[in-house]
Amino acid sequence: MEKREALYAGKAKSVYTTDDPDRMIMVFRDDTSAFDGKKVEQLDRKGMVNNKFNAFIMQKLEASGIPTHFEALLSDTESLVKRLSMMPIECVVRNYAAGSLCRRLGIEEGMTLNPPTFEMFLKNDALGDPMVNESHIATFGWADPAHIAIAKELTFKANDVLKQLFDEAGLLLVDYKLEFGLFNGQVVLGDEFSPDGCRLWDKETRTKMDKDRFRQGLGGVIEAYEEVGRRLGITFD
Amino acid sequence: MEKREALYAGKAKSVYTTDDPDRMIMVFRDDTSAFDGKKVEQLDRKGMVNNKFNAFIMQKLEASGIPTHFEALLSDTESLVKRLSMMPIECVVRNYAAGSLCRRLGIEEGMTLNPPTFEMFLKNDALGDPMVNESHIATFGWADPAHIAIAKELTFKANDVLKQLFDEAGLLLVDYKLEFGLFNGQVVLGDEFSPDGCRLWDKETRTKMDKDRFRQGLGGVIEAYEEVGRRLGITFD
Ligand SMILES: Nc1ncnc2c1ncn2[C@@H]1O[C@H](COP(=O)(O)OP(=O)(O)O)[C@@H](O)[C@H]1O
Ligand SMILES: Nc1ncnc2c1ncn2[C@@H]1O[C@H](COP(=O)(O)OP(=O)(O)O)[C@@H](O)[C@H]1O
Ligand SMILES: [Mg+2]
Ligand SMILES: [Mg+2]
Repeated sequence: MEKREALYAGKAKSVYTTDDPDRMIMVFRDDTSAFDGKKVEQLDRKGMVNNKFNAFIMQKLEASGIPTHFEALLSDTESLVKRLSMMPIECVVRNYAAGSLCRRLGIEEGMTLNPPTFEMFLKNDALGDPMVNESHIATFGWADPAHIAIAKELTFKANDVLKQLFDEAGLLLVDYKLEFGLFNGQVVLGDEFSPDGCRLWDKETRTKMDKDRFRQGLGGVIEAYEEVGRRLGITFD
Repeated sequence: MEKREALYAGKAKSVYTTDDPDRMIMVFRDDTSAFDGKKVEQLDRKGMVNNKFNAFIMQKLEASGIPTHFEALLSDTESLVKRLSMMPIECVVRNYAAGSLCRRLGIEEGMTLNPPTFEMFLKNDALGDPMVNESHIATFGWADPAHIAIAKELTFKANDVLKQLFDEAGLLLVDYKLEFGLFNGQVVLGDEFSPDGCRLWDKETRTKMDKDRFRQGLGGVIEAYEEVGRRLGITFD
């Protein structure tokens, strides 16, 4: 499968058409951004690490009955995926309090959230990805409410699979963000699952091993991503 | 029924016990606040106008099958109400875009919202009344999810009644906020319904006739409240 035309480039990945109109090539770049694109840096090896990390997780999720866009690893930084019609909504599940939840609701970082919370955010950098609910999505027509209900169900289903997977690697899955799209009318997990879009803490020390290292200027960002990968059994080179 | 002890004073009303432990007296003060208490002023006659306005609306809602805390007007500024165990959640329905919705979601003021949106906000001035969803309420135990579902249903039911009522008075019910509590295990509408907690626009000119006149420093605040009352057939003195 060869790259044809550039379709679009986001903050971390670029997307190309192929000779199959239903498939596209996703290229993971080294660009790393935070705060709605206000902090941007190149982090060596990140594209490769996230591409392989994502491939590993997507295959686990697919095997657990969650339909995903992932088809095949094509190279160090490229994957073949189904071309979806994306819903502009981020689905977030939180098992422990961190990040914007703490700021918004005055909750201390690290509090166990039982049951886990579910939040949706509109993908819109200019508006700072505002939190939205089902009624906003219905009123403004951002997605079909029935599709959103399925995305929510799949996001929680992923939590069962991933909490256990990371637990066995000595890690707490603090929270994560998923994006879904439609493929022949079916709700399918798209985009990526990597330490760029989730929070992972060492179970014993609660050391942060995710993009918060970048957001908070803690250093050792990609080293932490690779350490997580190694604990999961992912080979990077 | 006589006032006994002061129970608590909010930003606009004070509440007193009576000799009946299940009833309390709500006193509507002239204090007017906005921006989570950052802008505060005394507006002459407001306590009286809102007390009578609220009594009128609560009786209309009660007659339409919505259980309310309202029992009787006691004086110009006092009403007897059932003492509820309040849920710290504001329920907001919007028929037209205005206020924080426009800022948060980049929507133009005045856009018709079809279907109307439903939002919940945590009553917490220090946090700026953040938007929350059902999962936050369940996780942090702010209220029973079953009670919240009923509050949501009653908030929409009130919309049918009030949209028509205001329409017949030549007004658009743009949005409104309701607060609910429990009385013997039943979800009951508490607090108040007045131009302090809703937006009302003249149907022809879209002139604002609610607390936005105060927020935006437009003047003629209480005059507008009284004009709305007159159109509804409320007598103030
Ligand atoms: N399977 C897919 N089909 C179509 N578009 C996709 C798919 N997976 C992800 N996308 C989109 O590709 C872009 C991914 O690039 P990214 O750099 O993460 O963008 P962003 O800065 O918008 O988050 C996003 O717009 C995402 O919605
Ligand atoms: N029926 C009721 N029983 C008990 N408390 C009530 C009832 N109705 C309203 N309240 C509470 O009384 C206070 C009303 O005063 P207000 O000045 O509006 O307060 P706030 O500044 O918190 O909005 C609020 O805390 C509200 O929750
Ligand atoms: Mg992205
Ligand atoms: Mg109040």
